[in-house]
Amino acid sequence: MTTTVTSSASRSTAVTGAAQASRDGVVVLAHGGGGELMSRLIGDHVLKQLGNPLLDALTDGAILECPSARIVLTTDSFVVQPLEFPGGDIGRIAVCGTVNDLAVMGGKPLGLSLGLILEEGFPLSRLDRILASVRSAANEAGVHVVTGDTKVIERGTGAGMFINTAGVAALDERIRVGFDRIREGDVLLVNGTLGDHGMAVMSVRNGLEFQTPIVSDAAPLAGMIFALADAGVDVRFMRDATRGGLAGVLADVVERSGLTAMIEESCLPVRPEVRAAAEMLGFDVLSIANEGKALFIVPQEQADRALQVLRADRRGRDARRIGRMCGGSPAIVELRTASGGSRVVQRPYGEELPRIC
Amino acid sequence: MTTTVTSSASRSTAVTGAAQASRDGVVVLAHGGGGELMSRLIGDHVLKQLGNPLLDALTDGAILECPSARIVLTTDSFVVQPLEFPGGDIGRIAVCGTVNDLAVMGGKPLGLSLGLILEEGFPLSRLDRILASVRSAANEAGVHVVTGDTKVIERGTGAGMFINTAGVAALDERIRVGFDRIREGDVLLVNGTLGDHGMAVMSVRNGLEFQTPIVSDAAPLAGMIFALADAGVDVRFMRDATRGGLAGVLADVVERSGLTAMIEESCLPVRPEVRAAAEMLGFDVLSIANEGKALFIVPQEQADRALQVLRADRRGRDARRIGRMCGGSPAIVELRTASGGSRVVQRPYGEELPRIC
Repeated sequence: MTTTVTSSASRSTAVTGAAQASRDGVVVLAHGGGGELMSRLIGDHVLKQLGNPLLDALTDGAILECPSARIVLTTDSFVVQPLEFPGGDIGRIAVCGTVNDLAVMGGKPLGLSLGLILEEGFPLSRLDRILASVRSAANEAGVHVVTGDTKVIERGTGAGMFINTAGVAALDERIRVGFDRIREGDVLLVNGTLGDHGMAVMSVRNGLEFQTPIVSDAAPLAGMIFALADAGVDVRFMRDATRGGLAGVLADVVERSGLTAMIEESCLPVRPEVRAAAEMLGFDVLSIANEGKALFIVPQEQADRALQVLRADRRGRDARRIGRMCGGSPAIVELRTASGGSRVVQRPYGEELPRIC
Repeated sequence: MTTTVTSSASRSTAVTGAAQASRDGVVVLAHGGGGELMSRLIGDHVLKQLGNPLLDALTDGAILECPSARIVLTTDSFVVQPLEFPGGDIGRIAVCGTVNDLAVMGGKPLGLSLGLILEEGFPLSRLDRILASVRSAANEAGVHVVTGDTKVIERGTGAGMFINTAGVAALDERIRVGFDRIREGDVLLVNGTLGDHGMAVMSVRNGLEFQTPIVSDAAPLAGMIFALADAGVDVRFMRDATRGGLAGVLADVVERSGLTAMIEESCLPVRPEVRAAAEMLGFDVLSIANEGKALFIVPQEQADRALQVLRADRRGRDARRIGRMCGGSPAIVELRTASGGSRVVQRPYGEELPRIC
């Protein structure tokens, strides 16, 4: 008998929760309980925004056709504050970050997973807005969210939501990137201006305003990256320059290749407003996160062809040759400054930009 | 010049952070910054516990051999409180939950991703303990963590950490599960006692103590599930009974199959201490989360064989036949009570057990 009493008891409390949720239009704890309320949250919000045959099945996982003998798996969690900023939001960078991690490994995205951790009291209207942004970014990247998970935590973080995305991709065997393939004389390219994402977020956080507003560069790069493969460019190494910025990627490159990276400061594409914000806030533009920029290392004889291909894509319009790999130990990242001097670029320590993605 | 000044400035603050981190042995914000400190966190803690050739490469994703033409992708986030409880911790249920979601879809795990969201101030010793638990659960399941991501958030949640795991698996084409394959007369099996995980966590939260302590059933079920396929059992449908418990799974089954599920209360395996705790705390054992139990729906003529196979695995020692599918509309979950009566089991609403996984 206890059970019967219990279930009706728990039901009545739940009804209160449901009523409250629909009255206030906010997330309640019961939305994460795996019951009736969670079904409604999934149906009325997640599926409404992201619905597709695989996701709609609401099975424990998604079954995907795999055209290749090798696949790529990647994951990223996103804790950016604020959740929405000029040029994007947490949903957009979640999709772009995961698609880009797959693409720089040579992976053609097959499907994404979406893990939502929602804070009690989070407005459902805001959830819808962010899910719509997930959808549009996924459409841009030509991929679907095929499986997901939703949890709810008590009020207290003030964060509102955290997102984890994982992605699986079919490996394009034409693309063979690795630190061990980098050679002396290889050319370093970036597909556009540096620091836009990090400075867009930090400007909002610090209430900075500029005549030309700073906009995040969050974008999926898969199309541009596979265009390089289609053009027969043998990219030796590529990586998107997110947390830690270009300095972080270059630190890995020299550490793992044993070669020195020589960068020309005068060649680094940086928007004036981003440079101004960075100097105002005391950041080195090289260590600021990007969400739509990658470093490409290509053989010298293919550099021009690679630049052509990058610039043909709207994600690479401002692509630039920024330097080259050369010998000389110890292997360092050396920046030739505009003033003719030079300095060693250190690996960022990590204090620079908390909660940037 | 600004850049130079900046980088040395940010370096000094970072050094402070590093010093503090090593002095207190706790997570600091800079551990999530994508720089030097994060490299140390990954190297000294994550790789030390979970290291393997794929993860050690620290690339943007892991490249996996894929022996099948179809793959399964799944994800789960974990926000359980407390992080550690009798029989497991957040790391163990993260691995088991993801492996089990893959297995009930017919997927043989190829690799797992691990997304860590750590709270500033979280003790590194506790992180090591939980990562060691991730490792041992992964070993049990015969799978590796092949890629990951780490973020750090400011103090405030008190949660300490959240984990997201995603997994990719090779689909075993012998396994074809689906609500549409469920038939009248099919038999319902569970592989052991119900409610252990939920009541283990809730007992700790409520400071309940029993002569026989309640221990979570968190366990990877892949081995047992593929043993069913090896034995030629044609499982029509299976799902692990996590949030929402068996009642949640059965609610989906009747809703999607259009058939009624008839359950015998006297056949439900429930430990006395779990039943006592559930009654004390006012929960219906049917709606309590499990982390190592699944519902299996098999053709009547294969039920005995299936039970044999389940019982031959230590995860299925207490496997039981609990009821059968039958016609009759409306499609409901009907529980034949021990006292000879019967009641309709409702889909849980979700208020029952917050933060249980």
